[in-house]
Amino acid sequence: MIERPTLFIHRARAERNIAAMAGKAAASGVRFRPHFKTHQSLEVGRWFRAAGVEAITVSSPDMAVEFAADGWEDILIAVPLNPGAEAEYRDLSERVSLGLLVDHPDHVDFLQRTGLRVNAWIKIDAGYGRVGVAWDDRDTLRALALGLSALPHARFAGLLAHSGQTYQCRGRAEIEAIWSQCADHMWAANEASGRLQTDISVGDTPSCSVLDRFDGCTEVRPGNFVYYDLQQLRIGSCGLDQIAAAVACPIVSVQPRRNELVVHGGAVHFSRDVVAAPDLGTIFGRALSDAGDGWSAFADGVALVRLSQEHGVLTGPPGWIAGRRIGDVLRIVPAHSCLAASALRPHFAIV
Amino acid sequence: MIERPTLFIHRARAERNIAAMAGKAAASGVRFRPHFKTHQSLEVGRWFRAAGVEAITVSSPDMAVEFAADGWEDILIAVPLNPGAEAEYRDLSERVSLGLLVDHPDHVDFLQRTGLRVNAWIKIDAGYGRVGVAWDDRDTLRALALGLSALPHARFAGLLAHSGQTYQCRGRAEIEAIWSQCADHMWAANEASGRLQTDISVGDTPSCSVLDRFDGCTEVRPGNFVYYDLQQLRIGSCGLDQIAAAVACPIVSVQPRRNELVVHGGAVHFSRDVVAAPDLGTIFGRALSDAGDGWSAFADGVALVRLSQEHGVLTGPPGWIAGRRIGDVLRIVPAHSCLAASALRPHFAIV
Repeated sequence: MIERPTLFIHRARAERNIAAMAGKAAASGVRFRPHFKTHQSLEVGRWFRAAGVEAITVSSPDMAVEFAADGWEDILIAVPLNPGAEAEYRDLSERVSLGLLVDHPDHVDFLQRTGLRVNAWIKIDAGYGRVGVAWDDRDTLRALALGLSALPHARFAGLLAHSGQTYQCRGRAEIEAIWSQCADHMWAANEASGRLQTDISVGDTPSCSVLDRFDGCTEVRPGNFVYYDLQQLRIGSCGLDQIAAAVACPIVSVQPRRNELVVHGGAVHFSRDVVAAPDLGTIFGRALSDAGDGWSAFADGVALVRLSQEHGVLTGPPGWIAGRRIGDVLRIVPAHSCLAASALRPHFAIV
Repeated sequence: MIERPTLFIHRARAERNIAAMAGKAAASGVRFRPHFKTHQSLEVGRWFRAAGVEAITVSSPDMAVEFAADGWEDILIAVPLNPGAEAEYRDLSERVSLGLLVDHPDHVDFLQRTGLRVNAWIKIDAGYGRVGVAWDDRDTLRALALGLSALPHARFAGLLAHSGQTYQCRGRAEIEAIWSQCADHMWAANEASGRLQTDISVGDTPSCSVLDRFDGCTEVRPGNFVYYDLQQLRIGSCGLDQIAAAVACPIVSVQPRRNELVVHGGAVHFSRDVVAAPDLGTIFGRALSDAGDGWSAFADGVALVRLSQEHGVLTGPPGWIAGRRIGDVLRIVPAHSCLAASALRPHFAIV
């Protein structure tokens, strides 16, 4: 029995995921700069360090501060820089090798004005359409590259992109096509920016999971792969035997008339990210079966189908529902492990 | 400029929302036991205390512990009890008047076995279909009521329901119909349970906002009303001049080619709750205009339309987009303030 919703981490699987990705990066001759926003855990970070990782990616200054305090010395904050965080950037830049993203002349002006000693990357929109300079916007690329190269304190570090559109892919062929296009766009952007440097950072979890080699870049930054989840399973990035995170939730109510169980575990724990699951519809998570080591199969037909703030409702076959009791703990693989892990940072157990 | 996504609370509006609801409850002669899961703030809790509130609702033992430490002495945890939290319940029950929910004989057995001195409420499903004993399940109601009444330590406190289906309503007539049906069902359940007591606790934000009087119950537990949000505006529970929470987010990227702005502020700050907004589609939030006191109008046509973990993408009219600069702060009213407030608990500013 457990007191509250708790993120269970399967350490052996997470370490295998880390070792596999680190091995592929090494074999490809590229730097491995994993994204730590997925786990946000100092302890899990140390598993990466034990695998030889020295450079990391985070998504906020707060995360950078936490990992810097745990001894990480090369940290990239992979969101375009926010001028309001100048004080945090300055403090960090005096303690670690700090990377920041730029996609606008105002960002360059900020670095000029503040004199921050950072590694400035130009964020490229290589096709995802969220942030970054369009890969074919030659004038802006050239202007930013020249502007960064002229800064007396900051260093122009390279070009960086995130191909988030791979999260819409199904299977290897679609993902390889996006990788290949991204690489072409990045090298075109590098030409346009004047080839003032050649560090090229890319690499989302689907791409880095299905590709055997990371050709066409110098650095990869996957994050989600440390735990994987139902979305990655659906994409084809992983097998069930690689999923290393589940939210353990106590059953608080049984509703056999509706074939439903209710757990303590809701939107504040899982987030509202969903996945389309064959035969189950659009769901928030799937319960693991207790059989074997408890991580080897899903409970057949059991899905987390509704969430309110603290409640989660599961449906399943009547026989399975009838076998559950109040106080039993269900371990539910979330649709998206990054958001669940972020929400459950204070309540985390390694198993 | 701000360092990070921050929840801005309009204190005067929140206090007016509290005073109005407390006044209606007093005029109706019912106990006001507001749900504190919305704000989860000790400071906001003190505004309720200043308005005469003595009894509160929370949704987890952790929240109960926090508010007990701030002097609250009558706390109901409005999720069916979790046997795994026995230690926390025991500790709380020795310090405050603790309410727990029961909807199954196993819950009664737990109270019998543990001898906890608590107020035990029977959770009724009066039509929402989440947790609780069906209001017309006379046998179960009778058995639970007799079981609770026979406990030597726990006290049978009453019947309690949540009509969450009002969140699907539009306008007063639909909400009044649900309130009225809920009251009928609660009194039928009270008959079925043997009229061993008559405390009847109901009251969601839509109902308590649109009704003038709380007839048919003895206690109301709205929570969302302290801040309101876009969902409540859409339902018809509030006006824009009652909305008291907005997430302040720094602009980190401008994308005029797509008519988009990108802020630091994503799914980990807003959650993924959405609202259907006329002319804007299904959105995560709306930006406030800077005009006047900054809380009186939405920026016309500006909506938060996509979220990733830390990024939020807004669209808007080209002229408005063109007037924004990197580092500007947008104050965005979230679709659902409860989830945003929960996510942003550490970063909260009263304005």
